[in-house]
Amino acid sequence: MRILGIDPGLQVTGFGVIDKNGQRLAYIASGCVKSGRGELAARLKTLLDGLNEIIATYRPAEVVVEKVFVNVNPQSTLALGQARGTAICAAVLAGLPVAEYTALQVKQAVVGNGHAKKEQVQHMVKRLLALPGMPGADAADALACAICHAHGARFGALQVRGLRMKRGRLG
Amino acid sequence: MRILGIDPGLQVTGFGVIDKNGQRLAYIASGCVKSGRGELAARLKTLLDGLNEIIATYRPAEVVVEKVFVNVNPQSTLALGQARGTAICAAVLAGLPVAEYTALQVKQAVVGNGHAKKEQVQHMVKRLLALPGMPGADAADALACAICHAHGARFGALQVRGLRMKRGRLG
Repeated sequence: MRILGIDPGLQVTGFGVIDKNGQRLAYIASGCVKSGRGELAARLKTLLDGLNEIIATYRPAEVVVEKVFVNVNPQSTLALGQARGTAICAAVLAGLPVAEYTALQVKQAVVGNGHAKKEQVQHMVKRLLALPGMPGADAADALACAICHAHGARFGALQVRGLRMKRGRLG
Repeated sequence: MRILGIDPGLQVTGFGVIDKNGQRLAYIASGCVKSGRGELAARLKTLLDGLNEIIATYRPAEVVVEKVFVNVNPQSTLALGQARGTAICAAVLAGLPVAEYTALQVKQAVVGNGHAKKEQVQHMVKRLLALPGMPGADAADALACAICHAHGARFGALQVRGLRMKRGRLG
């Protein structure tokens, strides 16, 4: 099963593609789409086009979008929502199912600690996927989403049943 | 010139279509798309499909999306952002230009008072478009966006030049 993880952001949207074969995870691709400067509609179009291209290239079976929750200020929350809506549009336009996990769930699944730091996530993603180098922060977050889903999918729909991960195990 | 106004919301997205012939505005259609209950991706898909259908049916030349700004709580701001991103995706997928106006600009243009109440907007939309009955609140807001753009377009790109409307006139 091929999984596309997306870490949405208006400026930078990270993506990561992995294959899950039984218990084994294999790295396929990762990177980010930058929306550049300009008007909002043009920036969202850049994100949508980029994600459409990634989906067309790697043909994932499922898409995972991080359930971001930022409480900085309403303007950036709105911007994030718009980027997140665009990411979900790209998935549903391709007829793909979308799973969502909170940052807490993702960190629990990948690091074993819901409050792990960014560097710990990058480190564990590198280790779990046997990458030759450290992935960028946005790509690492997206890959972490995909890993979380791959783990969760082992137990069935994690978020629907309302179960919680505890140090990498279902509690 | 045919204009599609959109008042985005995750639960209810209002739309309004008008034709602008010189100074004259003509009502074409209005209504709303409801996303129903269910998972976020399914709801955004319902909004996207609905707006795609509206664009295919009425073939507007331009799309106007209200620059909503809500400071209630981060969760609803995020939900709004996702609906707004979806509305803009529908427009850019059809290759249409997107204009944005704040609620203040829309109310100024339609009522002549940036702090007008919802009922005043509904009343003025009914009058300006010579509607037989009062439009629903969501449809009225969407029609008001389209009217604001039709007025602004008379003077060129309103929001780009940084001009402000004052009691229906440019100041």
